Amino acid sequence: MPQSPTIPAIPIESAALRGVRGSAIRDLLAVTERPGVLSLAGGLPATELIPAERIADAATRVLGHRDALQYTTSRGAAQARDAVAAHEGVDADRLLLTHGSQQALSLLALALVDPGDVVVVDDPVYVGALQAFQSVRADVAALPITHDGTNIAALIRLLDSGVRPRLVHTVSNFHNPSGVTASPTTRRRLTDLADTYGFWIVDDDPYGRLRFDGPAPSPIVGERVIRLGSASKTLAPALRVGWLSATPAIVGLVERLKQSADLCGSTLNQLMVADLLSDASWFDAHIGTITSAYAARAHALTAALDDELGTRIEYASPTGGMFCWVRLPGIDTTDLLGVALSHDVAFVPGAAFSVSSDLAEYARLSFATLSPDSLREAVHRLSAAIDDGAHSTV
Amino acid sequence: MPQSPTIPAIPIESAALRGVRGSAIRDLLAVTERPGVLSLAGGLPATELIPAERIADAATRVLGHRDALQYTTSRGAAQARDAVAAHEGVDADRLLLTHGSQQALSLLALALVDPGDVVVVDDPVYVGALQAFQSVRADVAALPITHDGTNIAALIRLLDSGVRPRLVHTVSNFHNPSGVTASPTTRRRLTDLADTYGFWIVDDDPYGRLRFDGPAPSPIVGERVIRLGSASKTLAPALRVGWLSATPAIVGLVERLKQSADLCGSTLNQLMVADLLSDASWFDAHIGTITSAYAARAHALTAALDDELGTRIEYASPTGGMFCWVRLPGIDTTDLLGVALSHDVAFVPGAAFSVSSDLAEYARLSFATLSPDSLREAVHRLSAAIDDGAHSTV
Repeated sequence: MPQSPTIPAIPIESAALRGVRGSAIRDLLAVTERPGVLSLAGGLPATELIPAERIADAATRVLGHRDALQYTTSRGAAQARDAVAAHEGVDADRLLLTHGSQQALSLLALALVDPGDVVVVDDPVYVGALQAFQSVRADVAALPITHDGTNIAALIRLLDSGVRPRLVHTVSNFHNPSGVTASPTTRRRLTDLADTYGFWIVDDDPYGRLRFDGPAPSPIVGERVIRLGSASKTLAPALRVGWLSATPAIVGLVERLKQSADLCGSTLNQLMVADLLSDASWFDAHIGTITSAYAARAHALTAALDDELGTRIEYASPTGGMFCWVRLPGIDTTDLLGVALSHDVAFVPGAAFSVSSDLAEYARLSFATLSPDSLREAVHRLSAAIDDGAHSTV
Repeated sequence: MPQSPTIPAIPIESAALRGVRGSAIRDLLAVTERPGVLSLAGGLPATELIPAERIADAATRVLGHRDALQYTTSRGAAQARDAVAAHEGVDADRLLLTHGSQQALSLLALALVDPGDVVVVDDPVYVGALQAFQSVRADVAALPITHDGTNIAALIRLLDSGVRPRLVHTVSNFHNPSGVTASPTTRRRLTDLADTYGFWIVDDDPYGRLRFDGPAPSPIVGERVIRLGSASKTLAPALRVGWLSATPAIVGLVERLKQSADLCGSTLNQLMVADLLSDASWFDAHIGTITSAYAARAHALTAALDDELGTRIEYASPTGGMFCWVRLPGIDTTDLLGVALSHDVAFVPGAAFSVSSDLAEYARLSFATLSPDSLREAVHRLSAAIDDGAHSTV
């Protein structure tokens, strides 16, 4: 042994880790698992709407080929990339499969963002995106979202002030948590600005297929657009299959990082998703089933909000996705949550999604996982909690 | 639109990505997929030894419970953590499940290593570990591995020179690529030094159960040891289930990063691994089957090397794992590979695993994926390539 070693202090985490905000939502989910709590807090799809039997069929079929249990390429199994490419209407050489679209966010952050680079997000923000950008020490600029999606006027002011963002992140369809869908004008102006100023647009779209009615808006398109998709909300979260569609150059960069991050995805899970997506008539019928159920739940939630809270609550009726973003004027929803939990109902306070804006009066209510009757009971309890907690005002 | 914008140059990848060496091995694997090539290059387990039927049974059983298709916690499904904890003989609160053990390496690099921190690896190195440490811009110090594992004498010289490593990475059992197993003395001295100097030991152990005979050495133990395990080499790579066992504080740090990296692993895949590992009598018999097959293949390979190459080759007989590390004195194996491919045989040149050492005369031969007859034929072709390429000397 060497002489006189220096005894070091106990090491702490890396600087990268110190920059990451924990997810208040995931911490909260632990509490809401208490029996008897009706949770409007989750970001999960409804378990009973997951097509478990069809997925089991896919597993049996895929496991009939032993190669499905080997390693695959970092980009993803060719057959699965072809199926997703057909599903998304893009070329397979523009696609890379990820372990859920959260992995696409974290790999893109590593691939494209250096410490101090400006990344623009919506405020309120999808917390998983914020964490991914914080973990690479991005300088996050959060622009208050509008009813038309990303705040183009604020983005132009930022650009005019000389700021040159590296990328702009948004959830263009049924934004989490605000529920907003970007208008055609917002989409077009975003690509124009991206082409002019040379930033990337990350269009994070796990919810786009969960549209209650009417035609979908055209996706955000352009050479600077990186589209993220996922099987988590349409098929099942546990498949952990998401995808990224972008120029081959971006796909190549992310592929290199995926190799170092986890070598490759699960061949098995990717081929199961290929089996499910390429059965197009089944998939379309399944989407019809789940969007009808979610639409009915959204309606039950908002009808109950009207009945129980009337003018004490403000919201826009959900047109898809899983969330209703509400404002309770004069009420601090973080304080309200404590009271609500004592009434056996949970939600996520707006502050959990805030970067720079004051969202203390807001809350995200998920209508995805409760039945219409349970949603009505949850709102009844929430109303009682508001009556109880009338002292806790902003 | 704003006036006179600055038109930027096409952005390139982040600084983080520029530091990552591509894997020559994975690039090579593409070439070796050409029909007719006998490949000694892969790092895959044998497809025909993957217990596909038993895995299909597990899938059917797990998919009988719809919850298996939901999200799970970032730490991993409780039932799977319990099963892995029993398998590893540790407490479940010291365990976190990862997407293969490569993800454990990349998350540990992010959690523990800041740019410029010194990370010690063996030379030759497991390239996946090197990539993970390079991606966080570690200052990598590579110590030539010895027949007893990590080079303790060189590590002490490094420490004596004032260098304070953040962590030391090794593959303690059947090291990839060198095949070396760390001696009891090396294991003990590593923990003593870690305790004295405050570095972490990452003991990356995917191959430990693939021991041909004799008792396993005691694992490296201590509060500064982070053990990595994997189902990829014993069950199937496509399950993408690995694990990390460490102090609860380290598990908590990595959990925060996993949340940002990909939210969570696949509940389905984790519960399948739980089903397989907790069927202990089946698992032990399965390990017996695959280690017997690998031992027979290793013997076929080395017998053919002796017959065909005699004193022109040097190696230590494999005692487990998947690899035979050979030296061909006077031959540059990178040059030899080109000739070998024209003889329809592939291997990985030593240079692919080198950090600082000159490993031009070395090569990694995998005996895992070819039958004994094919291994003999592969060595016959390799010998012919050596005769052909006698002009290409070091």
